Amino acid sequence: MDRYYSHEDRQLVAVDCVIFGFDDQELKLLLIKRNMEPAKGLWSLPGGFPKKDEGLDQAAERVLSQLTGLKNVYLEQLYAYGDVDRDPGERVVSVAYCSLIKIEDYDKDLVKENNAHWRPVNDLPDLVFDHLVMVEKAMRRLRRRARTQPIGFELLPEKFTMPQLQSLYEAIYQKELDKRNFCKKMLSMRMLDKLDEKDKSTSKKGAFLYRFNPEKYEQLLADGFYFTVDVKTKK
Amino acid sequence: MDRYYSHEDRQLVAVDCVIFGFDDQELKLLLIKRNMEPAKGLWSLPGGFPKKDEGLDQAAERVLSQLTGLKNVYLEQLYAYGDVDRDPGERVVSVAYCSLIKIEDYDKDLVKENNAHWRPVNDLPDLVFDHLVMVEKAMRRLRRRARTQPIGFELLPEKFTMPQLQSLYEAIYQKELDKRNFCKKMLSMRMLDKLDEKDKSTSKKGAFLYRFNPEKYEQLLADGFYFTVDVKTKK
Repeated sequence: MDRYYSHEDRQLVAVDCVIFGFDDQELKLLLIKRNMEPAKGLWSLPGGFPKKDEGLDQAAERVLSQLTGLKNVYLEQLYAYGDVDRDPGERVVSVAYCSLIKIEDYDKDLVKENNAHWRPVNDLPDLVFDHLVMVEKAMRRLRRRARTQPIGFELLPEKFTMPQLQSLYEAIYQKELDKRNFCKKMLSMRMLDKLDEKDKSTSKKGAFLYRFNPEKYEQLLADGFYFTVDVKTKK
Repeated sequence: MDRYYSHEDRQLVAVDCVIFGFDDQELKLLLIKRNMEPAKGLWSLPGGFPKKDEGLDQAAERVLSQLTGLKNVYLEQLYAYGDVDRDPGERVVSVAYCSLIKIEDYDKDLVKENNAHWRPVNDLPDLVFDHLVMVEKAMRRLRRRARTQPIGFELLPEKFTMPQLQSLYEAIYQKELDKRNFCKKMLSMRMLDKLDEKDKSTSKKGAFLYRFNPEKYEQLLADGFYFTVDVKTKK
């Protein structure tokens, strides 16, 4: 192969995925118990190296899909980590990605085969290398986004109750929110369709189910609407 | 050297810098006319390869300082570009950085030696590889940030007039703004110190000079203030 850049050092480039899921109560992260060196036996984000014919995005999609069976889910690049000594194995630039998945959708067998586990974000084990820094950056972005975009909806089932939506926002912000304010704010944004169905799993009376309406949201954005979520805490 | 990751391919990792400057009227980009292959004779962003002892951030800082003589200026990572065939030379992952500098500060001799030129963002030449994609992403981020953070102040001289500040925002949004609204909005945020000096270079009467007050801004943020810039266009 012709090498224009013959005098330059090549190095390893990896992708690591911060995969969030939500199970009605807790925001969780999908983590791997490493069974290889370096850092064998410790916890890490799922990751890998791009193959010859893969760009960074495709590599991250493959890591996510090999682990969860999921394709075409929300996945975006978070940040490239390039400190010289961030990996004790050798110099590795790692490009971190962030994904939000519906926790009900993933393939349980695949996750088990890969020695992966869902761990609550507010009770994480020690992570290898700079993986905790990646997680913290992903959390900050998730909080910022959830304030200005309906990003959290990626984490919910297609139909959800208002208490479920509130639990998600409480998990993202790690704060208890005021129920009445939250509900009012959410409905005032008119991006939810109230369905004629109720979820009766948690009470006799049941709770109405809602569905996020992406068309209405796009229209709101086009009209210059700026989505903001009131994160006022419970009094 | 022990290689834990012995079976993996190493590849080139580069940094490229989107360097914005503002000269009172126009927002400009610092571009290089390439004198080496690939793409000799075409325009590109300033960039380079991290040295053995440099992380990504340090490499970007070096590229910026070798070209402009500036250190400790605003510089942040933008995005990692990793498509397999983005560089015709060979596979290169490029981590783009974005910088805002006061156009009066840079070292003119260094820029000349490096075959670099300031080009207005609304009249850019063709750029190599995916460098235009990088510039567009940087512009989108600059617009978003300027709406919620006083980021544009990095581009102004320490003391500036209200018309200069307005010109900057007009250059960032590529829109004419309403003078009265803009001034009112800016002053209402109380993050500018009005000085007892006037700039008399553009009129006999002169225009008062202002200075950005970062302490006031930090206090506003701590109080839960959310900076938003009215980008209503001129009627």
